[in-house]
Order: sequence, then C-alpha cells, then structure tokens
Amino acid sequence: MTGVIHGVGLGPGDQELMSVRADRLVRGASHIAFFRKEGRAGRARTIVEGMLADGVVEIAMEYPVTTEIPLSDPRYNDVLAAFYADCRAQLRALAEQGTDVVVLCEGDPFFYGSFMHLYTRLKDEVEVKVVPAITGMSAAWTASGVPITWGDDVLSTIMGTLPEEALVAALSQADAVVLMKVGRNLPKVRRALQAAGKADRAVLVQYAAMDGQTVGPLSDYPKETLPYFSIILVHGQGRRP
Amino acid sequence: MTGVIHGVGLGPGDQELMSVRADRLVRGASHIAFFRKEGRAGRARTIVEGMLADGVVEIAMEYPVTTEIPLSDPRYNDVLAAFYADCRAQLRALAEQGTDVVVLCEGDPFFYGSFMHLYTRLKDEVEVKVVPAITGMSAAWTASGVPITWGDDVLSTIMGTLPEEALVAALSQADAVVLMKVGRNLPKVRRALQAAGKADRAVLVQYAAMDGQTVGPLSDYPKETLPYFSIILVHGQGRRP
Repeated sequence: MTGVIHGVGLGPGDQELMSVRADRLVRGASHIAFFRKEGRAGRARTIVEGMLADGVVEIAMEYPVTTEIPLSDPRYNDVLAAFYADCRAQLRALAEQGTDVVVLCEGDPFFYGSFMHLYTRLKDEVEVKVVPAITGMSAAWTASGVPITWGDDVLSTIMGTLPEEALVAALSQADAVVLMKVGRNLPKVRRALQAAGKADRAVLVQYAAMDGQTVGPLSDYPKETLPYFSIILVHGQGRRP
Repeated sequence: MTGVIHGVGLGPGDQELMSVRADRLVRGASHIAFFRKEGRAGRARTIVEGMLADGVVEIAMEYPVTTEIPLSDPRYNDVLAAFYADCRAQLRALAEQGTDVVVLCEGDPFFYGSFMHLYTRLKDEVEVKVVPAITGMSAAWTASGVPITWGDDVLSTIMGTLPEEALVAALSQADAVVLMKVGRNLPKVRRALQAAGKADRAVLVQYAAMDGQTVGPLSDYPKETLPYFSIILVHGQGRRP
C-alpha cells in the first residue's frame, strides 16, 4: 500500500477560510511538508499554527534561492530544478513506504503556486490529490468591498514581473484586473496602469484576510515597493441592472 | 440591534469545499435566503441540503426572467431591477427587526455572482458581511489535473456571451484562459478559439467538483450547446524549472 501526497490549498491565510476538507486533512496529518525560505517560519506553516496533531512529522522544504539570482539567469532554473528533484525524491520515498503526506500550500495549489512543480514531477509516480482553495485574489476583492466583475467583464490576472510593454497590452485589453507579484516592480506597474488609463481606479489591498489588512487607492501609497502580501485591483464596470 | 446580512460563498458545489466559516454560518442560520428559478430547487439551496438547522426559515428569491428576454432588450434590466428592489426590501426588513440572514451564494459572491446586486443595494443600509469562496474555475482547473498558470502567464476569465470580435481579442491577448457562460454561444466560442490559435488546447470541464464531473478535450465534445456547469480552460505554458 503506497501513501497519498495531498496538495492542500490553505487559502489566503485566515484559518476559517480553509475548506472543510483542508481543515480535516491538516488536523489529521501524521506528516506535513511545506516550502519556506531558510531561516523563516514559512508562510504556509504559519497559517496552520495550532491545528496540528501531537507528534506530527514536519518536513521543511527550503528554497535554495528566491530573489538572490535574477529570473533571467539560467542558473536560476538549474538551482530550482535540482531543489524540486530533491523534494520529489523525499516525498516519493515517504509515499512508497505507505505514508500519507499533506503538503501545505498557500492560496490555491494550481494557481501560480510552488506545489505545481512537485505535482508535475510526482503525479505519474505516486497518487497525488489536490484540494483547491480560496485564492488570495478572492480575499482581496472581498476586502475591497466592491465586486471585481459585472456582466461580461474580462478579468485578467497579471504578474508585475512582466516587461512594461506586455503589462500595458494586458492591462489595456482587460475590463477588470488583478495584479500580483508587484514588489519592486511597482514603479513600472504604476507607469503601465497610467498608460492603460486604469491608474485612477487602482486599489491596493495589503494582507487580505490577515492581520493588518489595509485597503486604499494605489495613488495614496507613497513607497516604491510593495510587501509580498499585496494585490492591486482594478474593478470592472460592466453591465448591471 | 439590527441584524447582519451574510453573503456566504458556498464554493463549487461539494460541501467539503465550503470554508470552515461558511459551514459554521450555514449550520447555525435561523434564516437563509437564496436565488432560484421558479419551479426549481435552486442550485445554492441544493448545495446545503442536509446541513440546515431544524426550523430554519427559507426565503426563496425567484428570478422573474433568466433567458426568456434577451440581455439586449431594455426590459431585461427593468424587470431585474424591480426584482432586486423587492429582495432588498425583504432582507432589509428582516435585518431591521434584528434578524441575521445567511444568503447562500454559489461560487464566490464577488466573482460574477447574483449576490453583488443585493450587496450594492444593501451595504449602506444594514451591515453586510461577505465570505469569499472557492470559485468554480478553481474546481475546474483542479479537476483538469493540470495547473492553469505558470511563471508570468496572463490568465483571463472571459464570458462566452461577448461578441465574437471581443472574444477573439481577449483570447489572443491571454496566455491562459477560463471561459464561462458559454451555453448556446458554443459555436461562436469555438470559432473564436480557432481564430486565436487556442482551439487545440481547449479543455472542457463539466460539473467540476460535483457528481458527474467530466474532463476532456473540447474538440471531442459533439454538441452545439454546453450545460450550465461547464467551464472551458486553456492552460498556460509559461516558464517553469
């Protein structure tokens, strides 16, 4: 009997916004695994604090790099590929011994998540089950107090890491927008929003569904970088009765 | 003491994919309200079957029209606006009497949901709280067994009700796509996918996270219309280690 690797989406960060299934799997887990940066508690691990069974075995998968090597450097992919190969071997060995492992995933596992890199490597070797979750963007638009889309609005999720020209093109085509991975790309993102005629409607949500949640116009935010848990929204203006 | 109107997202349909908060609110509700078509059980009501407290008061809000009047007919908006005004009055009266009401919402309330029309009418009159949820599209891409986005992919959610030219433009700009509200627009959507060079990668997910879930290439689907619980996905092909 081989074990099952569960990729469990934890949602945006509030334990009450975990699904009933995720709650059950996390509380019942004998083995959990999670990504983190060396020296950090790890965001996914932090979300489940206080929920774990006594004696749970914890497997911290520590990223060898995050922002130290630029994405464009070929070494970035090489280092990460070796890292994911190690994680795969470790989880596969556990499953082959008959152990179920709950991999804790921030947000929704199949939506810009790190778990995808394990999933594609493991899915043909052992049983992998995925539990979807509330995305950070759903928490952000709920926090904003304004529905994100109406009628036939086209909603695009766009990463701030794109080149400026691609940002402008994607922003111009969409009626409603979710911008993620902005961080140090904020000046470029602001210029692109301006060029696409959407700067005045841009709303910044920080720490959605977490302690310290804030919502306000992006134009009121004075700094040049955004913290990690930040999402910029442009709400749709579509048809409504 | 006035009551609270809770707009509670139920997620894609599986009770275990409701959030812990939604589960608690639904089980504890003294009054629930939900939209449905006349003569039908109502999708949101069906999802919570077996979870309700004894003696719960049920308020069915029955759409006066759904597809009988075309969207382009000005009467469509008039009839719906009058309907939402009635619903607003009914819920506001309950809240003013001190009654909390749980409004059951399929999917995520602020993501193309009917609850938005009540929310905008009630939010300045009584306290309205919204619980985000797992979207139908998250359930669909999880069911597909393939992550929807990688790296910097632009993901667009696009309604099949758009004119063909707008569909082609939106489909062409995006790396990954979620198509909803396709129904009788399927022939037009197929042509637009072809024109945008994405027809070969289009995957049809029916009844995601529900009984009868199916996943397969759209090109294998022989009919001219899709059932209501259908989502077409085009997965992103972005950067990955």
